[in-house]
Amino acid sequence: MKQLQQKAALVRKWSLISTSVAGSGHPTSCLSAADIATVLFDSYYTFDLKNPHELNNDRFVLSKGHAAPLLYTLYAISGAFPLEHLKTLRKIDSDLEGHPTPHFKYTEAATGSLGQGLSVAAGMAFALAQGKSANKKPNVYCVMGDGELAEGSVWEAANFASHYKLENLIAIADINGLGQSQATMFNHHIKEYSNRFKAFGWEVIEIDGHNLIQIDNAFAKATKNKSGKPVAIVAKTEKGKGISFLEGKDGWHGKPLKNEDLEKALKELGEVDDSLKFTLKKPAAGPAARQPQNSPTGLTRPGPHSGAPRLASPAVSYKLGEQIATREVYGQVLAELGKHDEAIMALDGDTKNSTYSMDFLKAFPDRFIECFIAEQNMAGVAVGLSKLGHKPFVSTFAAFLTRAFDQIRMAAVSQSHITFVGSHSGVSIGEDGPSQMGLEDIAQFSVIPGSTVLHPSDATSTAKLLAHLPGQKGISYLRTLRPKTSVLYSSDEEFPIGGSKILRESKKDLLTIVACGITVHEALKAYEILVKDNIHVRILDCYSLKPIDNKTLKDSLVKTKKKIIVTVEDHYEHGGLGDLVLSALAKENAHVEKMAVTQVSRSGEKDELLKLAGIDAESIVKRVKSLI
Amino acid sequence: MKQLQQKAALVRKWSLISTSVAGSGHPTSCLSAADIATVLFDSYYTFDLKNPHELNNDRFVLSKGHAAPLLYTLYAISGAFPLEHLKTLRKIDSDLEGHPTPHFKYTEAATGSLGQGLSVAAGMAFALAQGKSANKKPNVYCVMGDGELAEGSVWEAANFASHYKLENLIAIADINGLGQSQATMFNHHIKEYSNRFKAFGWEVIEIDGHNLIQIDNAFAKATKNKSGKPVAIVAKTEKGKGISFLEGKDGWHGKPLKNEDLEKALKELGEVDDSLKFTLKKPAAGPAARQPQNSPTGLTRPGPHSGAPRLASPAVSYKLGEQIATREVYGQVLAELGKHDEAIMALDGDTKNSTYSMDFLKAFPDRFIECFIAEQNMAGVAVGLSKLGHKPFVSTFAAFLTRAFDQIRMAAVSQSHITFVGSHSGVSIGEDGPSQMGLEDIAQFSVIPGSTVLHPSDATSTAKLLAHLPGQKGISYLRTLRPKTSVLYSSDEEFPIGGSKILRESKKDLLTIVACGITVHEALKAYEILVKDNIHVRILDCYSLKPIDNKTLKDSLVKTKKKIIVTVEDHYEHGGLGDLVLSALAKENAHVEKMAVTQVSRSGEKDELLKLAGIDAESIVKRVKSLI
Repeated sequence: MKQLQQKAALVRKWSLISTSVAGSGHPTSCLSAADIATVLFDSYYTFDLKNPHELNNDRFVLSKGHAAPLLYTLYAISGAFPLEHLKTLRKIDSDLEGHPTPHFKYTEAATGSLGQGLSVAAGMAFALAQGKSANKKPNVYCVMGDGELAEGSVWEAANFASHYKLENLIAIADINGLGQSQATMFNHHIKEYSNRFKAFGWEVIEIDGHNLIQIDNAFAKATKNKSGKPVAIVAKTEKGKGISFLEGKDGWHGKPLKNEDLEKALKELGEVDDSLKFTLKKPAAGPAARQPQNSPTGLTRPGPHSGAPRLASPAVSYKLGEQIATREVYGQVLAELGKHDEAIMALDGDTKNSTYSMDFLKAFPDRFIECFIAEQNMAGVAVGLSKLGHKPFVSTFAAFLTRAFDQIRMAAVSQSHITFVGSHSGVSIGEDGPSQMGLEDIAQFSVIPGSTVLHPSDATSTAKLLAHLPGQKGISYLRTLRPKTSVLYSSDEEFPIGGSKILRESKKDLLTIVACGITVHEALKAYEILVKDNIHVRILDCYSLKPIDNKTLKDSLVKTKKKIIVTVEDHYEHGGLGDLVLSALAKENAHVEKMAVTQVSRSGEKDELLKLAGIDAESIVKRVKSLI
Repeated sequence: MKQLQQKAALVRKWSLISTSVAGSGHPTSCLSAADIATVLFDSYYTFDLKNPHELNNDRFVLSKGHAAPLLYTLYAISGAFPLEHLKTLRKIDSDLEGHPTPHFKYTEAATGSLGQGLSVAAGMAFALAQGKSANKKPNVYCVMGDGELAEGSVWEAANFASHYKLENLIAIADINGLGQSQATMFNHHIKEYSNRFKAFGWEVIEIDGHNLIQIDNAFAKATKNKSGKPVAIVAKTEKGKGISFLEGKDGWHGKPLKNEDLEKALKELGEVDDSLKFTLKKPAAGPAARQPQNSPTGLTRPGPHSGAPRLASPAVSYKLGEQIATREVYGQVLAELGKHDEAIMALDGDTKNSTYSMDFLKAFPDRFIECFIAEQNMAGVAVGLSKLGHKPFVSTFAAFLTRAFDQIRMAAVSQSHITFVGSHSGVSIGEDGPSQMGLEDIAQFSVIPGSTVLHPSDATSTAKLLAHLPGQKGISYLRTLRPKTSVLYSSDEEFPIGGSKILRESKKDLLTIVACGITVHEALKAYEILVKDNIHVRILDCYSLKPIDNKTLKDSLVKTKKKIIVTVEDHYEHGGLGDLVLSALAKENAHVEKMAVTQVSRSGEKDELLKLAGIDAESIVKRVKSLI
């Protein structure tokens, strides 16, 4: 016990030193969780430092990411690197960032936007438990702050975890009572949290988070949990615990100690032996959890995105002129791809009969996760799955993916590889009205660094593009359509990411109409009208929005007489196709005419709404005529 | 009771007819709530149809917006319009949209993205209760579906409502057990919901949602509630209730009845008297709830956005060269504006000491709402406040406003007027790292139709722009900076929305550098370096991103020798300043060089990170030299 106290003091010491050297950071938030983390790492956490991707490892997700120095200190004391390295905290060339990111190799997922860790942890617990007997499931530990328990996403995750009986998920709520700017909603009334977790179907263990015996008992119980429920250890703690002038004091959030204060603090901690170590328990060897097919062995997870065998052409094909909605194609083709790539998993938010992910559910019930109407958690779970080597395909209405923008943003910081699929894009959905129309989605996904954004117009191109996505890195987005559209392409055509298709061209072309999705079909109708008036235009199907086909766009500019590009999109006017085309042609002295949705739409029939938005064939004809 | 049953049948009849005539819609979702809504409108709902903005009215928020035909039918039976008008449901020229929007004048807020209504209702309940004795507070009723209770935002709102003791908030949970694609997580286990609401500090009344006596008793109790807690009526219901072949049947979500089925259904309902009416209770006259100053009378709410007295110049000024962060200016100036406009309210998500909204809290504690770390609910509460004539200013870190994107999108559909203020924008925040950097915010807010997006670089321009915002319509966004910057402008300069400032110009200018926020200062540094090499460039502070200053941008293109615009922004490369400039110059055959953040950033010092992102003075100099 004495030694455990000494180790906790060592954790505190280096949490304080590292932030003081950095000149910024959140030492008091580390101190409240120091005792809990010490017991966990000293006696329970099972992890092979040499093989962090080992699937039998436990996982440790620090949801309260501002306590990053605690995370780093724990691994340092575990022998991952020398304590002195902690002094590089927050420096531009250090792996020890202000909030955990994958630069630090033991980070399971980037955190720091609060309330997201539990979803990631739940996704991991789900994946690690699959097909394993109760005593073989690695545990996933998630340390949360009390401030972040106000985030709704936490309660989405709480529902998810109890619904799927994730008894290997152990959440630790560090109730230190103080938020950033004032006391939290419930201060130290830990019953408020216990009652919430219990109501959400969790086992709850209440403890004094600074009583090492109580902590140890809690972990002993939690790690033996066979209740069929996830476990929440609700710990009453003090922010700044262990240092008299910090303990429970408001006004110290996010403030490192100045030198003089640091000296005082270290004096209070007393002599601490820097050579103390956590000896992490090694995971048992043995068959790993269900393993993506493409993983070389059964024991090691495939690491970030091992790359799947790509299907050049899925075994689904469509007849020219056939009427089928691209959302339907999504379901058919994903089910097909699933046969060839075990890593593919599908997630949906109670819209599977609209997005057609239900076709995947039918084919692979074990690899489909119904996430109910909780899009934030769905995205977080996908991060957890991705970090364990799975390839999540996450679908709902395009509009409702806005709900998970923060999680998607953080998924990129986490370097996860996820495909999001948004159905019901644009005003073309018709009568359901503006709340259901995805009109911001291209902007949302394009802004994410390194993202891929695709919006095919027909079945063939949807099928072909989808086949690339299991191998795509980073955040990918496939935008599908609600209404049926004609099949435009034969099954022998190829659709590389970053490409486009010239659908109509002649030597007499005056200008180019660039479209995607539903507006491709409007552009083709416009073409027929224009050509009767002997007005020739080039029609480009810009199915790949990011990366975009710069070359063909530049070519089109040069090869048409008026050197004008007209973009037409069923998306709001900023951040969509028009801007992506403009950006591609930024240095080309181009003339681009943007046609897009400029106002909140309304209920009505598809064709009425396309007309109202000024993006139908007739509007295109009018615009073209005004330009020549 | 017989008559009440008949009225419920009438509600069912027209919910069925209207959706069948429309050929789409969600009749079964209306039927499960029909009995509850009938009792509410027949006996409790207090509302002056002729004065829907009357502040003593109760409010009815239909969070499960897909039951819109129910909402419309209720008002028709209340005498707002003839029943026959219900047959225009979902038609392009009708006010009766697929999901409620303000086109229907009794819609309190647009719904249809699930799980948002309770936040709006809580905002309204908060505003209507202020300064009123317990028995004078109008009630706010919010009808929710069980599917949407999976959304975390609901539980954020639940926390908010109990924390602020909103005893005039009455939530009705319509637990019909069926979601869109399958049974909900808890099907008919209403205890699961009751326990959650109780744990979140609510009074709970469980009922059979089709037993008119139980319903009446519940409302009788709820409307007399003096518990200091909000009330949840948790009602066990059947989807499709009242029609034998729909009742409790899966597979009927969002499906209207075909003619034959409709006839069968109407036969089951029996003879129903179309002349039956709800006689709504009139609100008591008397002093209204706390009323925005600019409202002409004490009784009528000012209606959507009555326009505030604008302050040409707030009584805060800054010295040229003074170092001050624009986030600090936000706090100082908002507190000043608050003196002149009582309608201004400030909301924050436990970041008030970082966003500086705490200055407003100090000045007007009654008009500040601490929303804790729950950004979705914060945005929803702001919608509720706005719809009652208040002017909410909502602040947190720019990055965390991504959490509320769906709510912000819906706020625009609701035609609400809200200013969002995002601090800690860009990589210039430094050591905290990527999770805390707002780099998607300009894209997010620009895509919203009719939005205003401002990003000033110094104290004076921040103060001046802020003074316009209480009078601005729609969704406005002010982006502030974490680091201190030099005051560039004297207090007699004006900063109209849609304007820009030329900071450096000469007749020898080769090109124009367009910047905003922190990059204005980098551009000025670059200018000094370039001018020493006798390279003259024009520097434009594009503080208004949307609307953007087209005229000055076009002028700059014409008046510089190279006819090149270089944009520099501390934001990701898509959807930000560069794209907005490109869009403004789309028809001008312009050459635009975008400099922006292209990768996830990291921890480091501000200047290091600007350099790493390639948006510092040195990078600008290099780019300019490569262009001439």
